[in-house]
Amino acid sequence: MLVVKKFGGTSVGDKDRIVNVAKRCIEEYQKGNDVVVVLSAMGKMTDELIAKAQEINPNPSRREMDMLLTTGEQTSVSLMAMAMDALGVPAVSLNAFQVAMHTTSVYSNARIKRIDTDRILNELEQRKIVIVTGFQGVDRFDNYTTLGRGGSDTTAVALAAALHADACEIYTDVDGVYTADPRKVPDAKKLSEITYDEMLEMATLGAGVLHNRSVELAKKHDVQLVVRSSMTQEEGTVVKENVRKRTSEISGVAGDDDAARISVLGVEDIPGMAFKIFNVLAKKNVNVDMILQSVGHGNKKDISFTVKEGDMELAVKALEDHLPDDAYEGINYTAEMAKVSIVGVGLRNHYGMAARMFQALYEANINIRMISTSEIRVTVLVNKEDMEKAMIAAHGAFKL
Amino acid sequence: MLVVKKFGGTSVGDKDRIVNVAKRCIEEYQKGNDVVVVLSAMGKMTDELIAKAQEINPNPSRREMDMLLTTGEQTSVSLMAMAMDALGVPAVSLNAFQVAMHTTSVYSNARIKRIDTDRILNELEQRKIVIVTGFQGVDRFDNYTTLGRGGSDTTAVALAAALHADACEIYTDVDGVYTADPRKVPDAKKLSEITYDEMLEMATLGAGVLHNRSVELAKKHDVQLVVRSSMTQEEGTVVKENVRKRTSEISGVAGDDDAARISVLGVEDIPGMAFKIFNVLAKKNVNVDMILQSVGHGNKKDISFTVKEGDMELAVKALEDHLPDDAYEGINYTAEMAKVSIVGVGLRNHYGMAARMFQALYEANINIRMISTSEIRVTVLVNKEDMEKAMIAAHGAFKL
Repeated sequence: MLVVKKFGGTSVGDKDRIVNVAKRCIEEYQKGNDVVVVLSAMGKMTDELIAKAQEINPNPSRREMDMLLTTGEQTSVSLMAMAMDALGVPAVSLNAFQVAMHTTSVYSNARIKRIDTDRILNELEQRKIVIVTGFQGVDRFDNYTTLGRGGSDTTAVALAAALHADACEIYTDVDGVYTADPRKVPDAKKLSEITYDEMLEMATLGAGVLHNRSVELAKKHDVQLVVRSSMTQEEGTVVKENVRKRTSEISGVAGDDDAARISVLGVEDIPGMAFKIFNVLAKKNVNVDMILQSVGHGNKKDISFTVKEGDMELAVKALEDHLPDDAYEGINYTAEMAKVSIVGVGLRNHYGMAARMFQALYEANINIRMISTSEIRVTVLVNKEDMEKAMIAAHGAFKL
Repeated sequence: MLVVKKFGGTSVGDKDRIVNVAKRCIEEYQKGNDVVVVLSAMGKMTDELIAKAQEINPNPSRREMDMLLTTGEQTSVSLMAMAMDALGVPAVSLNAFQVAMHTTSVYSNARIKRIDTDRILNELEQRKIVIVTGFQGVDRFDNYTTLGRGGSDTTAVALAAALHADACEIYTDVDGVYTADPRKVPDAKKLSEITYDEMLEMATLGAGVLHNRSVELAKKHDVQLVVRSSMTQEEGTVVKENVRKRTSEISGVAGDDDAARISVLGVEDIPGMAFKIFNVLAKKNVNVDMILQSVGHGNKKDISFTVKEGDMELAVKALEDHLPDDAYEGINYTAEMAKVSIVGVGLRNHYGMAARMFQALYEANINIRMISTSEIRVTVLVNKEDMEKAMIAAHGAFKL
């Protein structure tokens, strides 16, 4: 059996944790399995490197930033190999060049294109544990790239796919995926299984156990993931295509308290107005989330959407500067909003789930400001101060 | 003109020094020259990485140690590229993979075999300053290697040779090569020129401005070196094949106060005894320096040699354990010795130089314990407490 195990920065944050991870991998190895370990940079190392760079250049080139940051994972993997060696197990560390982890050339946000598996398979054949740098790749010009947020998860999934691994385990500081954030919803329970699609919706909604790109990749290559804790031996949550029947129609409730609502009012009801608005925002790199267009009154309509709170002023100013004055009547906006969502494949086939959520919020006396839905998700925008109450209400309504 | 500039760890020890080096390189660039910069790891970074490794594994594999250490130079070069970029000059950092710095597979002490110059030439053509990691290479299995002590100097010389550079400048914390260590001989003067061979003898003798391997490589490829300070604008010392006529027959006086003398007494005067003795020491990795064999008395002779003080006890014990008891009569040894040498191509053709040195030491009332010579060097072993007095006496005798 070939197992890929990924450990994040907290799990390798100091000497003792490195040794702990080494032991954990050795247990797997001693069952006779082939073990490939993917590591992030140690604890705060990436932040420290960024601070060092900022001191020298407040706006460093992304190419050089990636060159600097890749030293982080290389440090982790070499120290891990030493730790395993000290425990009497042969290990070898490999960086993105040595694996040949080919990516696109988009510095700081590259995508994996192809992985050469020869070197890894060769080392596994010699019964070594193979320790690979997460997060980093090499483009076709031999420049280092990095994969952006959650990049090491993506590395692990890509390796599992390329190596046709039997398991891909993502170790983190929580012991699985919960029906809601336990810090916000005391009744939250750990899920034993969740589908890729549900995980994707949860990830987007800020229940950030796994990064989206890694889940997408796992879905694409049908790599079954296990999310579990590096600190305990508890079973984690399996992320896969289909799950067994659940007692609840939904898999979880997610909350994201970084939202602001912007409404462009009295927009002329002619084709192309939505394009104009969102094009202005795209040019300013403002990410737009929930979008809602009112049914027109006469020849006017309103277009509302949410952005991250930090982007609100920039977005409003960009619209005021770049939309023709006669194209709309006004803009209004509110910060301090939050998104609360229910997610579950059950929403596909069960009617009335949205209604049940709205009822729960109504009974909790929470005002809904916007609604948006996908096939397996219902999201409402509420005042930030109401977020936790809304999450608890929704969680309770679905007997999670 | 293509100039290779190498800066050591002290020269890039912190933010201000990095910016200082960046400015220095930009001056050269703005003259219209092509500039290739070779950097070591920042200040104490290598020591810190070694300490980190030791914490996890007191005896780490050299392969993993090299994997860890190469992050040091990669950090320096990326930060340097950011510094130059902040000063408005395009720069690109390259590590051993990106340059394709091919070495042998001897971890921690590899030798450069071949450098691909395509990438560097390409970047220079785009009028970028190219910043290359010193000290590190890649073997034919894509493993990182390091070049051992003074490795960044070697990188610089090898690059200068491969690129047919017009100049190779080694920046250090002294402003050149002196006729003697100024801390020990107050009259010491900076040399404007020195030959490769003299530099090699000086380096071996502890006047460690340049590491031997880099000087050997420079001699082999006829790369003219300049040793100068990164802190001042002073002219440095040029290291080359031939020097102009000097006022003194010698180029300098060197002292090394880390020496112990060991004598194996009453060794049977038959072939193979010297081999046996030095083979025992080689197996224990004891480096032997000055070797002296007395003319035999009857069928017995004495064999004396020097080792580093720290190796003395190990060496004596190894000899006692592994030489047959009847092969010698006894061993005596003295720690706290020092070697004092005069070096100069002038010694080749001028008779009486050794005698002039011995006379100066005699007049200074210094006892000579052993003598050894090469074509361009005379070395004497004296008591450690006499070293500085001996250096001053020799320095004065040759009107340096």
